[in-house]
Amino acid sequence: MTITISIDCMGGDHGPSVTIPAAISFLKKQADVHLILVGLEDTIRAELRKHHGEGHSRITIKNATEVVTMDDPIEIALRKKKDSSMRVAVELVKDGSANASVSAGNTGALMAVSRYVLKTMAGVDRPAICSVMPNQKGGPTYMLDLGANVDCEPHHLHQFAIMGSVLCSAMEGNPRPTIGLLNVGTEEIKGNDVVKATGLLLKADHERGKLNFHGNVEGNDIFKGTVDVVVCDGFVGNVTLKAIEGLSRFVKSVFTETVLSMAGALLARKSLKKLNPERYNGASLLGLKGLVFKSHGGANAYAFEWALQRAYQAAKYDVQEQLSALIAELMPTSPGQASQA
Amino acid sequence: MTITISIDCMGGDHGPSVTIPAAISFLKKQADVHLILVGLEDTIRAELRKHHGEGHSRITIKNATEVVTMDDPIEIALRKKKDSSMRVAVELVKDGSANASVSAGNTGALMAVSRYVLKTMAGVDRPAICSVMPNQKGGPTYMLDLGANVDCEPHHLHQFAIMGSVLCSAMEGNPRPTIGLLNVGTEEIKGNDVVKATGLLLKADHERGKLNFHGNVEGNDIFKGTVDVVVCDGFVGNVTLKAIEGLSRFVKSVFTETVLSMAGALLARKSLKKLNPERYNGASLLGLKGLVFKSHGGANAYAFEWALQRAYQAAKYDVQEQLSALIAELMPTSPGQASQA
Repeated sequence: MTITISIDCMGGDHGPSVTIPAAISFLKKQADVHLILVGLEDTIRAELRKHHGEGHSRITIKNATEVVTMDDPIEIALRKKKDSSMRVAVELVKDGSANASVSAGNTGALMAVSRYVLKTMAGVDRPAICSVMPNQKGGPTYMLDLGANVDCEPHHLHQFAIMGSVLCSAMEGNPRPTIGLLNVGTEEIKGNDVVKATGLLLKADHERGKLNFHGNVEGNDIFKGTVDVVVCDGFVGNVTLKAIEGLSRFVKSVFTETVLSMAGALLARKSLKKLNPERYNGASLLGLKGLVFKSHGGANAYAFEWALQRAYQAAKYDVQEQLSALIAELMPTSPGQASQA
Repeated sequence: MTITISIDCMGGDHGPSVTIPAAISFLKKQADVHLILVGLEDTIRAELRKHHGEGHSRITIKNATEVVTMDDPIEIALRKKKDSSMRVAVELVKDGSANASVSAGNTGALMAVSRYVLKTMAGVDRPAICSVMPNQKGGPTYMLDLGANVDCEPHHLHQFAIMGSVLCSAMEGNPRPTIGLLNVGTEEIKGNDVVKATGLLLKADHERGKLNFHGNVEGNDIFKGTVDVVVCDGFVGNVTLKAIEGLSRFVKSVFTETVLSMAGALLARKSLKKLNPERYNGASLLGLKGLVFKSHGGANAYAFEWALQRAYQAAKYDVQEQLSALIAELMPTSPGQASQA
C-alpha cells in the first residue's frame, strides 16, 4: 500500500527552500510514498526545478493561494486564510486523499485548523501534542502534552496517557510501553490534586491490564529513559520542552565560542550525534480524526525529513485505528465520564 | 562585622567528608566568617583532623546526636529527631547565634524543620525555594519556586516575585532586577488562569514603580538571560529544574563515552566551565524569619563551598531586612489580601 503525505510546503521559517529538498530526499528513501506538495504552485515548481525534482512520478502539486505566517493569530489562520497551504494540506487528510499531513507552520494555528477541519476523535476531549526526546538508554522518550492544553483535568491527562501509549506502541513496535506521570516526586502522595487523581485512574487501568503504568516520574527521568511515555499537562510540558531547547542552544553556543571548544565538539561529534535534536523532529497532533505532524518551525531539510518519516510511520502502522480501538475500549461511554467514574 | 554560619555537617549524600573540607577551604577565603559545625562531635573532630582544621579559631563545634537521612519522611525529621544536626543548625539561626544556616540534607525535611523552627516572615504566606542558573549572557538567572509549593494562587506567585527580586537585588547589587513570569508564550493572553491573574498583579506593581516586571517569559528564556528573576509555581519549577539536571547529566555522559569524546571535552573545558552546575549550588529557602540555604544532596566540597558563599553573601547584604521592608511596603495588610485586592 502506498502512503500518501500532504506537505504544507509554505510553513516554517524557511518554507519551500527546506520543505522541497526534504521531500525529494525522502522520496529517494521510501519507495512506497506519494507526496502532495501544497502551496503557491509557481514557487513550488521553481524550487523543484532547483533540486531536479520536477515531473517526479510520486509528486503531485496542489495549489493553495494563501500562506499562514509564523506570527498569524489563530483567528486569521482559521477564518481569513481559507485557502492557506496549511489548511488545504489538512483538508487532503480529511477527504481521504492523504494518509497524513506535515507542516512546519505555527503550532497554535496548525492545531486550530486541524481541529476545525478534522474534528476530534470520538472519546477524546482534547487533542494533545506529543513529541519524542532522546534518552540515555538510546531510545526515544515520548512526551505529551507539549502545549495544546494549559489547564487539564485528570480525565484529560488520562486520555493523553492512552494516546501516548498507542503512538509509542505503534511507532516503536513495543506492545506494552511503560507510562510515567510527570510529578515532583515518585511517591504516590506527591503532587497537586490533578496529578494525584490522574495517578489513580492510570493505576486502575494498569490493574485491569490495559495500560502499563509505571507510576510517577520526575523531570530527570525524561532523559534517563525510565519510561517510554511521559504524561503531563500542556503548561508543564511546554515550559519543560522550551527549557530543554534553551539549554541545548546554550550548550551549542558554548561549543562554538572558541577555536578550542570547536575542536572539542569536532572530536566528540560522533557521541554528540546522540543529542542531535534534528533527529527527533516531528510532533504528533494526537486525538484528531486524521494524522497531522508538526515540524519545528526552524527545521532544516534534514530535520524536516524526520518529521516526514514520523508521519509515514504513523500512517503505515495504523496509529489512527489502534487509537480508536483503545479509546473505545478504555472509555466506553461519553468523553470524560468513564474515566471520572 | 563577622558573619556566623551554622553548617549541618551530617546532611547530604556524603556528610562530613564533603562539608568539613568545604568549611575549611571557605574559611581560608573569607576572613570575616565564623563557622559553627553541627553534628556528631566525634565524627566532626575526626574529619577536621584529617584536613588539619582542628583548633581553628573561627570554628565552633556544636554537638547534635541525631542525623536526618536523605530518605527520612518529613514527620520523622520534624517530630522524632529533635536533636538532629539539621534542626540544631537552624535553631542557631533562630536564637541569633548564627546569621545563616546551610544544609545538604533532604529538601522536604529542611523546609519543614525551617518553617517549624523559624516561622514564616510576616506578609509571606508560603516560603519558596530559589536557585540560580547560568545563562548565555554570563550572569545568573534566579528562579523560584523550585518545589516547595505545588499548588499556588496568584498572590503566592506575587510574593515569590517580590522575594526573588529582593534576593537578586541584594546578591547581585542590581537595584532593579527584571522579573519574568514563566508561561507558554510571551503574550498577555497566554497561560492558565493563575498565571494570567499573577501577570495583572505584577503589572500593577510595575506601574507603581515597585517591581521591574518584564512580562511573560518562556522556558528557553531561563538560559537566554532574558530576565534576572523567573517566577513559577513549585510544580513547574521542580519539573523544569530536574529536566534540566537530567539533560545536563545526559550531555556529561555523552562526553565520557569514548576516548575521542573525552578528548573533546578536555579541549573545550574552559568554555564548558560556564555550564558547570557546581558553581550554581546553593538554593535559598526564602520567606522565613531567618536565612537557610540548601546545598544539592550530591554536592562535592567545591559545590558545597558555593552554597556557603551564597549564605554568607545573603547575610552580609542584609537580604532579610530588605525582604521585610519590601514585603511590608507592597503588602501593607494581612497576607494575601493586599495582593488580591
